[in-house]
Amino acid sequence: MTTQELLKKAKAAKTALSNYTVADIDRALTAMADALVADCDAILTENAADIEASKGVISDVMIDRLSLSPERIEGMAQGIRDVVKLPSPVGKVLNRVERPGGLVIEKTSVALGVVAIIYESRPNVTSDAAALALKSGNVCVLRCGKEAHRSAAAIVKALQKGLTSAGLPEDFVLLVEDTTRQSANELMTADGYVDLLIPRGGPGLINACVKNAIVPCIQTGTGICHIYVDSSADPDMALNIIENAKTSRPSVCNAEEVLVVARDIAPSFLPRLKERLVDDRSENPVELRLDPEAQKIIDGTPAGENDFDTEFLDYILAVKIVADVDEAIAHINRHSTGHSEAIVTSDTTSAEKFTRGIDSSSVYVNASTRFTDGGEFGLGCEMGISTQKLHARGPMGLEELNTYKYIIRGNGNIR
Amino acid sequence: MTTQELLKKAKAAKTALSNYTVADIDRALTAMADALVADCDAILTENAADIEASKGVISDVMIDRLSLSPERIEGMAQGIRDVVKLPSPVGKVLNRVERPGGLVIEKTSVALGVVAIIYESRPNVTSDAAALALKSGNVCVLRCGKEAHRSAAAIVKALQKGLTSAGLPEDFVLLVEDTTRQSANELMTADGYVDLLIPRGGPGLINACVKNAIVPCIQTGTGICHIYVDSSADPDMALNIIENAKTSRPSVCNAEEVLVVARDIAPSFLPRLKERLVDDRSENPVELRLDPEAQKIIDGTPAGENDFDTEFLDYILAVKIVADVDEAIAHINRHSTGHSEAIVTSDTTSAEKFTRGIDSSSVYVNASTRFTDGGEFGLGCEMGISTQKLHARGPMGLEELNTYKYIIRGNGNIR
Repeated sequence: MTTQELLKKAKAAKTALSNYTVADIDRALTAMADALVADCDAILTENAADIEASKGVISDVMIDRLSLSPERIEGMAQGIRDVVKLPSPVGKVLNRVERPGGLVIEKTSVALGVVAIIYESRPNVTSDAAALALKSGNVCVLRCGKEAHRSAAAIVKALQKGLTSAGLPEDFVLLVEDTTRQSANELMTADGYVDLLIPRGGPGLINACVKNAIVPCIQTGTGICHIYVDSSADPDMALNIIENAKTSRPSVCNAEEVLVVARDIAPSFLPRLKERLVDDRSENPVELRLDPEAQKIIDGTPAGENDFDTEFLDYILAVKIVADVDEAIAHINRHSTGHSEAIVTSDTTSAEKFTRGIDSSSVYVNASTRFTDGGEFGLGCEMGISTQKLHARGPMGLEELNTYKYIIRGNGNIR
Repeated sequence: MTTQELLKKAKAAKTALSNYTVADIDRALTAMADALVADCDAILTENAADIEASKGVISDVMIDRLSLSPERIEGMAQGIRDVVKLPSPVGKVLNRVERPGGLVIEKTSVALGVVAIIYESRPNVTSDAAALALKSGNVCVLRCGKEAHRSAAAIVKALQKGLTSAGLPEDFVLLVEDTTRQSANELMTADGYVDLLIPRGGPGLINACVKNAIVPCIQTGTGICHIYVDSSADPDMALNIIENAKTSRPSVCNAEEVLVVARDIAPSFLPRLKERLVDDRSENPVELRLDPEAQKIIDGTPAGENDFDTEFLDYILAVKIVADVDEAIAHINRHSTGHSEAIVTSDTTSAEKFTRGIDSSSVYVNASTRFTDGGEFGLGCEMGISTQKLHARGPMGLEELNTYKYIIRGNGNIR
């Protein structure tokens, strides 16, 4: 099936989907979870073929991400069952006004329609994304990287079996067959067919979407996250937060990449930072990349031209010294990707300035940036973390996969 | 000043603006209204020059739209004063959760930052858009069509006088000097400078934005609005609604362009429709463009190939006959621009099917499509009507000119 044919199927399916109830969808999701487990062997066979083909082509870390096991498949099924338990946003009345003349206007949450996701080599995204899209009333079009395509095809086949066994059309979850760049471009330009495109991948994919997408698109994921240590900060609290934000899981988008320190406390704080992140760590010491002023206080790598604009995703931390919270805000707004930033301070004026002035999805006072996550924010799930401002910002849950429409009921009202 | 220089000014201004209170902004808006009235003569002089230059170049209707008078300027000032009275969305806590560990997460409404508006020849849009953008905490970049540019420059000069007299920087409202296509393209591609672009104009401008814009953009305005008369409809109610939707103001985007009629009642309903819209109207009779089936019942113009995909903005109505509400929904979803559609029915099942199945911003049961308007929906104002699904759908008020960010307060919390 060509991508164009698949998109036509998806468009036809979205009208059909609007006629199913929340109970129908929950029943189908449960059947999909069961079908995943039932198809475990078939999925593992295809996954083994994907892994075999990828050996020597992608890194061991990527191969690990690609690898499935009976436990991982059971985990994917459990993920779907968890989604069943979440409340559906579809049909929720967000606002209701009664106008003079008796017109009743209800702003009502409704599915977007067709949600397309372009992702790379993690097979579990296939079932996660399908479950979240379907639970929020959307037809799901998946476009997987070629390394994971056989696994994804086996997973989608199982999910479709679940759909049909529950009496719903299999077209509610569709996998694009073509894994070349052409199919990604076809999705980006599928005006009138794709209601929302979510690219989940590296900066190359995200930038290609920003530049080329004609369909509505949400940028996700890139996080150059900053922590600013104010002159009034409790240094112990600051060290705990920095160590957590930098080292608890450096490969994720909410990890800290840049530390900004107020000049007043830098002479006392930076030696303690080096002790904590470098000297005291027998495993994975952090490489500090220091601006010229910080270099005068502690030893470390001199920061290069791009070190304040890089998502390291590694045990590396760029360090910059500033005069005060205003200079910190200016630096962060210039270099941040708009994901998550934190201030450590005991001064409410600095905290207020920071939360007002920082132009990012999630702004923390005295807490680690690592909390930016759908689960941690109480959304129950996460389709990705938006770093843009329109529609969804920060972690995207089910509500963010809906739009609204106004439903207006009258009795012959004219204007 | 080049457009690039202006965009840099706007970006610098948005951080400054985040430090002003709602009271500061309201005071500035009041001063801007006063300054408009005080500068009335200067504005009228520039407006006269615009009109003189446009004679013979644009239509009389367009010249009328372009023309200002002391009364119209007073009306513009009153428009700003009305915006002062509206509640500001900035800082509103949309959701608050307290997490285990004491982390408090507040989803907070905040300004988008820099809002750019590309519009055509109505000078009043200059002050309306500036007031709405500023009230919602945004720096406003205006790019006006060349026919109205001298008028817009005089209006912006007055608004800037108002800003400075209230102690705020004049850079919160900026007018692009260049009126060629280049400046529109510069705004569409001003990644990192423009947080939201709103094109207000004809389909050419809107399509150029959809195709070329890299910055976040909201499509507004085009309305191919449908009314479906169900077989169970009260024919008198249907005629009242259709006459209102088609003829009360045919040049606006929420006017009806296409009538869809259930086959069952077409033989009795269409003759009455012709009587009401054609025969009984001594002024501005409506031209009916009929599909083959309707032609067998009443006289009228045979509908051409594009008549079901045209925003006539005139006393013209395309008429199509369908089997039932399902066929009506399918036809409308294929041909609509997603603006406003109505069903006239006395059957709750048909009404429910229609409100679920129609994929448009505003879906009416037994009321005229003409109500789709910020004022009528109780928003108090309107920046435009979005026909897209992301972020804002339908009439856009102050809330739709905001995004949100999460402000998270902890006490040293780590994950």
